[in-house]
Amino acid sequence: MARIGFIGLGNMGGPMARNLLAKGHEVAVFDLSEAALVAAETAGARRAESALAATEGTDVVLTMLPAGAHVEAVYLASTDQRCLLDQLAPGTLLLDCSTIAAETARSLAQAAAARGLIMLDAPVSGGVGGAEAGTLTFMVGGDGDALERARPVLEAMGKNIFHAGPAGAGQVAKMCNNMLLAVLMSGTAEALALGVREGLDPAVLSDIMKQSSGGNWALNGYNPYPGVMDGVPAARGYEGGFLVDLMLKDLGLALDAAARLGQSTPLGSLARSLYTLHKQGNSTATQDVGRLDFSSIQQLFLAPPA
Amino acid sequence: MARIGFIGLGNMGGPMARNLLAKGHEVAVFDLSEAALVAAETAGARRAESALAATEGTDVVLTMLPAGAHVEAVYLASTDQRCLLDQLAPGTLLLDCSTIAAETARSLAQAAAARGLIMLDAPVSGGVGGAEAGTLTFMVGGDGDALERARPVLEAMGKNIFHAGPAGAGQVAKMCNNMLLAVLMSGTAEALALGVREGLDPAVLSDIMKQSSGGNWALNGYNPYPGVMDGVPAARGYEGGFLVDLMLKDLGLALDAAARLGQSTPLGSLARSLYTLHKQGNSTATQDVGRLDFSSIQQLFLAPPA
Amino acid sequence: MARIGFIGLGNMGGPMARNLLAKGHEVAVFDLSEAALVAAETAGARRAESALAATEGTDVVLTMLPAGAHVEAVYLASTDQRCLLDQLAPGTLLLDCSTIAAETARSLAQAAAARGLIMLDAPVSGGVGGAEAGTLTFMVGGDGDALERARPVLEAMGKNIFHAGPAGAGQVAKMCNNMLLAVLMSGTAEALALGVREGLDPAVLSDIMKQSSGGNWALNGYNPYPGVMDGVPAARGYEGGFLVDLMLKDLGLALDAAARLGQSTPLGSLARSLYTLHKQGNSTATQDVGRLDFSSIQQLFLAPPA
Amino acid sequence: MARIGFIGLGNMGGPMARNLLAKGHEVAVFDLSEAALVAAETAGARRAESALAATEGTDVVLTMLPAGAHVEAVYLASTDQRCLLDQLAPGTLLLDCSTIAAETARSLAQAAAARGLIMLDAPVSGGVGGAEAGTLTFMVGGDGDALERARPVLEAMGKNIFHAGPAGAGQVAKMCNNMLLAVLMSGTAEALALGVREGLDPAVLSDIMKQSSGGNWALNGYNPYPGVMDGVPAARGYEGGFLVDLMLKDLGLALDAAARLGQSTPLGSLARSLYTLHKQGNSTATQDVGRLDFSSIQQLFLAPPA
Repeated sequence: MARIGFIGLGNMGGPMARNLLAKGHEVAVFDLSEAALVAAETAGARRAESALAATEGTDVVLTMLPAGAHVEAVYLASTDQRCLLDQLAPGTLLLDCSTIAAETARSLAQAAAARGLIMLDAPVSGGVGGAEAGTLTFMVGGDGDALERARPVLEAMGKNIFHAGPAGAGQVAKMCNNMLLAVLMSGTAEALALGVREGLDPAVLSDIMKQSSGGNWALNGYNPYPGVMDGVPAARGYEGGFLVDLMLKDLGLALDAAARLGQSTPLGSLARSLYTLHKQGNSTATQDVGRLDFSSIQQLFLAPPA
Repeated sequence: MARIGFIGLGNMGGPMARNLLAKGHEVAVFDLSEAALVAAETAGARRAESALAATEGTDVVLTMLPAGAHVEAVYLASTDQRCLLDQLAPGTLLLDCSTIAAETARSLAQAAAARGLIMLDAPVSGGVGGAEAGTLTFMVGGDGDALERARPVLEAMGKNIFHAGPAGAGQVAKMCNNMLLAVLMSGTAEALALGVREGLDPAVLSDIMKQSSGGNWALNGYNPYPGVMDGVPAARGYEGGFLVDLMLKDLGLALDAAARLGQSTPLGSLARSLYTLHKQGNSTATQDVGRLDFSSIQQLFLAPPA
Repeated sequence: MARIGFIGLGNMGGPMARNLLAKGHEVAVFDLSEAALVAAETAGARRAESALAATEGTDVVLTMLPAGAHVEAVYLASTDQRCLLDQLAPGTLLLDCSTIAAETARSLAQAAAARGLIMLDAPVSGGVGGAEAGTLTFMVGGDGDALERARPVLEAMGKNIFHAGPAGAGQVAKMCNNMLLAVLMSGTAEALALGVREGLDPAVLSDIMKQSSGGNWALNGYNPYPGVMDGVPAARGYEGGFLVDLMLKDLGLALDAAARLGQSTPLGSLARSLYTLHKQGNSTATQDVGRLDFSSIQQLFLAPPA
Repeated sequence: MARIGFIGLGNMGGPMARNLLAKGHEVAVFDLSEAALVAAETAGARRAESALAATEGTDVVLTMLPAGAHVEAVYLASTDQRCLLDQLAPGTLLLDCSTIAAETARSLAQAAAARGLIMLDAPVSGGVGGAEAGTLTFMVGGDGDALERARPVLEAMGKNIFHAGPAGAGQVAKMCNNMLLAVLMSGTAEALALGVREGLDPAVLSDIMKQSSGGNWALNGYNPYPGVMDGVPAARGYEGGFLVDLMLKDLGLALDAAARLGQSTPLGSLARSLYTLHKQGNSTATQDVGRLDFSSIQQLFLAPPA
């Protein structure tokens, strides 16, 4: 069993920490939210009053934070002229499960290696549901041996663990996957709307395309058209799920990387334009579309009132 | 067993007619190509010298033609002041397996019904391979009872038979599916190219996305990146398969319908722009990209020579 | 002075016919609308009860109709086994001022030539205002000598007369211009919305861009942002002007031609997708955005309510 | 006459400094390039060995640098625990003529104000030609009184001086203008290519659209189609002019701002995708399309070899 310093107890981090505890790992936690700390303590964690304090006596540090700036702040911001990386014991394994830019992940891994530490980028997919059920997918970038060392920790929280390549590769895999997902979802919504406009039953059309060459993750198990599938966000007014704002964040990571590399991403770029139009056009004074599930892009393609 | 008049013995129609014969149906054939007629005759068909002659004494007429104009010409063009529809016995079942505009399919079905004939639109997916193996998918529009009557004929040529809805609905399902397919394929190619540009192995990235939310028909079984998958067009210089020109034709059907209806299809439209750029930019005096498989869109996203 | 048979007295055709009369031409008119006929008669035209009757004793036939199908119907539909073209005196000059597909214009010109008639395609720009003021722009396709013969007639209705090339070239020039115009207008609206979102005054930003490399017809004289310019549709709730529905029609002509030729038009295609989204998303049970001026695309880019 | 510390003597900065000298201003210069320093010295400038040294005894500091990171480095990087801003005399006027993110410009202006300094963002348009001729356009963000103080300096280098609004507004105006310019140029290239494909003479079509509603800066004076206009990059193989790489940089600034604000920019995004495809697809081992003029986007739309 590992001794783990866990930093970031949000919607994802909270249940991930609980799953680590449930599998018998020793977990010290830090978060800015008192409520999150209390909940983790109740589940058996040791609460700490700072990120540094959470890492004392641990051999694994796990971060699960909203964006690259937070991750850099935790590892690199100086307190007493020394940053967290300066104060960890050599050989400590760092697992950053946040979704951040691949470039940032690479420079953090370098900064860690320069201090005798080992860092893996290990962003997840599977959402809050997967975090709670312990069925997350991890896309891991970094050294293969380090991944083997991390495996028992990751397996306590997830089901599929992929080694994507060297440092940063986990973030690359995630951003490519999610950019493609945005295209699948908006393309599916567009095709369903056209079929319905032409008089087809969306459930019949979905069934045909699923078994044909139009089959894809969005259509097959996360149908965006209301009334076609039970238990998906489209069945409950697009509440919950994977938020439009998070999809926009992930598209930003992919498109920023593409721009930096001079790689053309016309469909991903258009998907971002459409998600942004969706949020701008369908938000109202009382509803922020950014807080809806990303399958709500279906709304953009619905016909005007007759 | 049915007596079938079969009109149109191209790359698809030829093997479809042979499968009908192999299952014991009685088939009379017509085509403008002497070679195609000879081949069908060798396989056991009765050859006819005109479309009308092929339909004599049959209870089913099947058309498999390149475009709507050909289908209209066969059924509606006048010879001796009467068109083919005027000369068929009431109750004859017409199966048009061509891929044409839904609007044309609907007006043909109306013209048939006005003469006591029953018409189904039944476009296929599965390509030449599926036609030869008898594993085509049929997307059928029209009356449900007529579909039951057609089922033994269709089952001699295909595996999956979907009832999409009333007249024209088969064409709608196919155009929606293929528009979505163009989006899946180009989105997949774009995501793979970005990942490779960032240093990932395309096979590793493909494997990760297949098992994540990026999974889709193009990625899972028809990978466009050379070297990732065996037995697909990408493994043989994009020869054969489903041609870029055919994808452009199908996109045209979908986008024309969308324009007529005032339905926005930004991703399908962009996919057509990209396929057209691909054909324009990568064709040379000796190679017409339109004759390559549609997964060759991958080439559009490859980095320039270093 | 010419003797002119004028067919099609709509919003454009009505004032055009009046300008011909005002310049002393002899005009016989036909339209399906009794009101339009009465108005033209009041202005001094001879009313006719059919297209054929309107052309009797004339040396010029002018058509101003909504779409290609109407133009084909007027010239090619048979009555008594003969179409209008069959019944005109050899040497009659045909001026089709409708906006139709270049392909249709070419085949009509051929059909006319085969009967010893001379046809020019001469679509206009300038809108209802230009039609009333007699300041239309004509883009003319066809023989140069015929254009000289037509010039006095065209000059009675317009100010700029361009010879675009052979038959059909007038339609090509118009569709290219209007496709570009859709791009200018939506690009201008998008840029203004971004600047305003960043805190700029739209009038100041417009003024800067007009005098810089962003200057264009839409920005310079037809500003889409409400409150920047007087006397434009944006100053009156986008009422009147050049309707979204007409822009969609013209985009359809350009994109259909591009698809037929295998020419990629990504920006024109996106503009159509955006105009269609605009119409779908902003129309309500009581307002059809298709009836608003095309500068109303600005609404698509406005921020959600704060 | 002002005493000016001028930092950044590149393709733009070099001629700008020379124009200041020519108008009698006292100029001290710094650049990392020895050759640039020598050239400025020859023109009458005092050369300095550091940015700080260049600002000694001056009342105006002018920076003309490639990107935001360079500007931040000059003003904010610490040497001896103090950055340049800490060492300037209160009341010094800072003119940053670089093209950088509006956000960066705003935070620099704040940092300057906190130290009793006055900063204006004053990016330019007009290119190297305008810099040499002293006919640049300045788009200025910041205090209006400070702009009046800066005016004699700016007028020594340019012709049009616009006050766009408060700090950062100059950068906003420039990025909006250049995003729109990318749309104008690619839209114009697309429309010309379609017309030519339909048989029109590009010069005739250009002439018609210039005088119609398709008129815009790119078409009117910077025609991208080879052979239409003399003296433009299209007339010399797209050498020189405003580079594709610089347009991509400016599009990046606009699209990053739009993403940060949640403002949809579909046409600007597509223009970036097209410029990137152009660079990727048309670059070869010996030619980097990024070094060609941005009107070379015309190449993307040319038909394949016949």
